[in-house]
Amino acid sequence: MTASAVAGFQIEAFLARERDRVNAALAEVTEDAVAGAPPALREPMRYALATPGKRLRPILCAAAWRAVRGDDAPDAVYRLACAVEVVHTYSLVHDDLPCMDDDALRRGRPTVHTVYGNTRAMLAGAALIPAAARVLDVAARSLGLDAEVRRALVLELCRAGGAEGMVGGQLMDLAGEARRLDARALEDIHRRKTGALLAASLCLGGLAAGADEAALAALSTYGGDLGLAFQIVDDVLDVTGDAAALGKTAGKDESAGKTTYPSLFGLTGSKSLAAAFISDAIVALHAAGIRSEELEALARYVVERTH
Amino acid sequence: MTASAVAGFQIEAFLARERDRVNAALAEVTEDAVAGAPPALREPMRYALATPGKRLRPILCAAAWRAVRGDDAPDAVYRLACAVEVVHTYSLVHDDLPCMDDDALRRGRPTVHTVYGNTRAMLAGAALIPAAARVLDVAARSLGLDAEVRRALVLELCRAGGAEGMVGGQLMDLAGEARRLDARALEDIHRRKTGALLAASLCLGGLAAGADEAALAALSTYGGDLGLAFQIVDDVLDVTGDAAALGKTAGKDESAGKTTYPSLFGLTGSKSLAAAFISDAIVALHAAGIRSEELEALARYVVERTH
Repeated sequence: MTASAVAGFQIEAFLARERDRVNAALAEVTEDAVAGAPPALREPMRYALATPGKRLRPILCAAAWRAVRGDDAPDAVYRLACAVEVVHTYSLVHDDLPCMDDDALRRGRPTVHTVYGNTRAMLAGAALIPAAARVLDVAARSLGLDAEVRRALVLELCRAGGAEGMVGGQLMDLAGEARRLDARALEDIHRRKTGALLAASLCLGGLAAGADEAALAALSTYGGDLGLAFQIVDDVLDVTGDAAALGKTAGKDESAGKTTYPSLFGLTGSKSLAAAFISDAIVALHAAGIRSEELEALARYVVERTH
Repeated sequence: MTASAVAGFQIEAFLARERDRVNAALAEVTEDAVAGAPPALREPMRYALATPGKRLRPILCAAAWRAVRGDDAPDAVYRLACAVEVVHTYSLVHDDLPCMDDDALRRGRPTVHTVYGNTRAMLAGAALIPAAARVLDVAARSLGLDAEVRRALVLELCRAGGAEGMVGGQLMDLAGEARRLDARALEDIHRRKTGALLAASLCLGGLAAGADEAALAALSTYGGDLGLAFQIVDDVLDVTGDAAALGKTAGKDESAGKTTYPSLFGLTGSKSLAAAFISDAIVALHAAGIRSEELEALARYVVERTH
């Protein structure tokens, strides 16, 4: 692929098309996720899974599949990819609770606990964790993947969405509030909080596609670096963005006294740092022989986005 | 086995011995559960997993293994069994939170949120869910179980600990507070809230031991019925017991206006019902050709216990 091919890639159209495919798959896997649940739990689970979003994680998962296989991904890959969105959704539901970030709005829509109360939101969030494992396994079976791969998929998702990954990062993030952190500590937080699940998105796509160890490692590195760049840009947008475009309250980090990338490196320095991580991400793919117009365009999109 | 052999079974000594083995295994799997977690998360996870308990679920799991195999269970079976205790522990941590049951003490010890605050308790609880999958998988590997069984174990634990099982039951239980329920609704709640995870304990032991479908179904039926009996006896003890022996606040159900088995059937009627479920549980085992002195004695213990 040439530089001009990447430059000519229509990222917004690609994202819109992919988001539609993910949303269709998400509607389907919602049925697997809530199967057997009592109605009082099904409602907040459905509501949570219908939260609008960029769907970046499943889009990355399907793109990783294509990067490894070279042909288009069947619908079951999108359903498999949605398992990561289910875990991401649980984290948003819990994050928004009063004992955590206490947010009443998410993408302009009342948060789950605002609609269903704290108890139902908390239980619905917790129920999404095992539901994600089921969604993943059902989709993996319809892809004809063998038990060893299905086992590996669930364990990888658990690792990324658990104590050493996302949940650990959330706690470190909350513990770091109103405390001065250095760049290393901040990176550790965001590698866990955001990077781990993004890396898992790519890994799951790669695992489902039958990628070898080197390709999986490269996809994981790309995902982790992309996660960091994403978080840096989030921090920048928190300073420069407006609430309507972000779908959340801007300026929240500063008022909470949080250490952010802009507070450590300034706005220009933060943008350069994000660009450097993106560059590293693409180098990792190339080193493993992975040439993916989509993944390269997605990486550039993450640093160039304005909301 | 003769009736006198069961009658002669030293259940208290058996439970004490088994509890020691489970506690030793739990200390080991705690390391797998917290591996890679940041210290601020590791502490409340460790504290939660060190909550004293009857360890009924892992004891049942190991007993199911022996019932199928006929010889003693290696230590790895106890570590595998502890995965269920990890899920049970997460549910206790979340149940005790102010937005749920709001309990300051559990078995006479300050609850996790009392010691570490609501946020850390909530995150530690959530982190225990994927941690349980890892604990299960690591133990299953050391038992030499193949990928298909390891996959089945994790999925079964997710099913029982999720929306259609335990979490669904918890929500129904909370939603039913201060509302008059009939016997059928009450049974549905407790089959999910308590029965599902107890049934999974037996199933996991059976799966690990290589039980056939009929044996797994019987173990599951036994577990579900045992769970109901256990809950009925819990309701009875809430009326008749004292706080010190129970390790929690007695009379709480009545003051919360909850429908309980004693409120529907009286104390004597409730005890008879518990005995009937226990009897059904043992019949199910016998019908599948499972003769287990331990499982029969455990079933009787559940209805005869005084705390």
